[in-house]
Amino acid sequence: MQIIHTVEALRQWRKTAGTVAFVPTMGNLHEGHLALVREAKKRADHVVVSIFVNRLQFGQGEDFDKYPRTLQQDADKLAGEGVSVVFAPDEKELYPNVEQRFNVEPPHLQNELCGKFRPGHFRGVATVVSKLFNIVKPDTACFGKKDYQQLAIIKGFVEDLNFDIEIVPVDTGRADDGLALSSRNQYLNQAERAEAPRLYRELQAVAQAVKAGSVAYAELENQARKHLEDNGWVVDYVEIRHAGSLEVARAGDKELVVLAAARLGTTRLIDNLEISLN
Amino acid sequence: MQIIHTVEALRQWRKTAGTVAFVPTMGNLHEGHLALVREAKKRADHVVVSIFVNRLQFGQGEDFDKYPRTLQQDADKLAGEGVSVVFAPDEKELYPNVEQRFNVEPPHLQNELCGKFRPGHFRGVATVVSKLFNIVKPDTACFGKKDYQQLAIIKGFVEDLNFDIEIVPVDTGRADDGLALSSRNQYLNQAERAEAPRLYRELQAVAQAVKAGSVAYAELENQARKHLEDNGWVVDYVEIRHAGSLEVARAGDKELVVLAAARLGTTRLIDNLEISLN
Repeated sequence: MQIIHTVEALRQWRKTAGTVAFVPTMGNLHEGHLALVREAKKRADHVVVSIFVNRLQFGQGEDFDKYPRTLQQDADKLAGEGVSVVFAPDEKELYPNVEQRFNVEPPHLQNELCGKFRPGHFRGVATVVSKLFNIVKPDTACFGKKDYQQLAIIKGFVEDLNFDIEIVPVDTGRADDGLALSSRNQYLNQAERAEAPRLYRELQAVAQAVKAGSVAYAELENQARKHLEDNGWVVDYVEIRHAGSLEVARAGDKELVVLAAARLGTTRLIDNLEISLN
Repeated sequence: MQIIHTVEALRQWRKTAGTVAFVPTMGNLHEGHLALVREAKKRADHVVVSIFVNRLQFGQGEDFDKYPRTLQQDADKLAGEGVSVVFAPDEKELYPNVEQRFNVEPPHLQNELCGKFRPGHFRGVATVVSKLFNIVKPDTACFGKKDYQQLAIIKGFVEDLNFDIEIVPVDTGRADDGLALSSRNQYLNQAERAEAPRLYRELQAVAQAVKAGSVAYAELENQARKHLEDNGWVVDYVEIRHAGSLEVARAGDKELVVLAAARLGTTRLIDNLEISLN
């Protein structure tokens, strides 16, 4: 496994590399990331994992400076997974002009759900992933359903800007108690960690009610929100949306997803659950 | 020479095509375009010319519907130039969702110079050229210096979004009397055609004064504007800018360009001239 730090060296390697499946990450890898790598491994001659903490997708007051940089441990984890290349550029390599002048601008969806609470986040994601796609030139790229809105944004710009890349959604990895795997789980104290699985349980309750025929979406959303708030959560949103477009769900929609973001103490957790009525 | 109408067929052809030099156009080809094609021909195994009248880059009140579609004549011209593929998709092929949701968003430069008079134009250019780049996957792409701001926008997003494509600027083709070749020249009546070369002459006068040591840029700009207005032109702008960044020129800048846009009757002409003080 090679660790490559420059765009130029990655391009050189790429020229003779056959097919490539790509997993972009910000490092600090956990089992959820490794599941993406294993999915990628099935799909191409080579797996490239990028590790880059992308300033563009952090908002004011977010934890860009404190975000854990753990390249050596990450590389150790990836070495056992048959990864060919870890691409770990520094900031100057990806943003040589400091300011990113041209951006991939998502539509209004970028200001909804998590975007409402993280202005500019999805513009930053779409822009850096476009850059990485143009550097790595993968045939396939794997993204977790855990970041469902991010996945929709990426599918969207790949389609609209005609990137010739297959986007593979990968199911969310979960702890035994249902908590979605996330880099942020490490910030939970013991009491918060015990409480955290409630988020997924509430999503399951919403999904069960919808599957049983309820179309009182607003009521279901509010119930979930209240259950969380009653247990000490600060809820950003609980919303039932169309699974493909992430537009607000309408009567008759068959492919839905319920998404939530909520904070326990200072830690913001997100999760979601697809609901198919077919 | 093949004429290919679909993204899928173009992608199939591309897989075995070696190196490709690309010339994106909106058709209605003249000698200026053919100069781009000849430059492209020197640089790769194959030349691909796209012909697509891009709705996104037309503003309200602009001539999208009336823009000449002359595919057969264009193909005849290109057949003699050793072009391998004419890529001529229809609108549904490039904009299957009708609405383009994700755009390549240029920085403030998009609202200056021509952008001030054509809101959204450069966003539309950057977006469609990004799409075409992802479809054609060229090694090289040729753009005329005639559309100097467009060239700056394209160089900018190629750099910022890490497209692995060499952008080749090609000198402006001119009629014997200096008028820059343009699809729009056909709209000039005889009197306007006789008057039209004044635009370039004024740019030459500005360049000469700057080379002779004048740094009174605003005065030079105003003089050129007045000479044009005195001869019946409606002037959008005459501006001296830094040639690389297109920022407003500052004392000490050595690589400059003077750019102008002005209307004769209903026809809007643009032109520019680089000024190197080294």
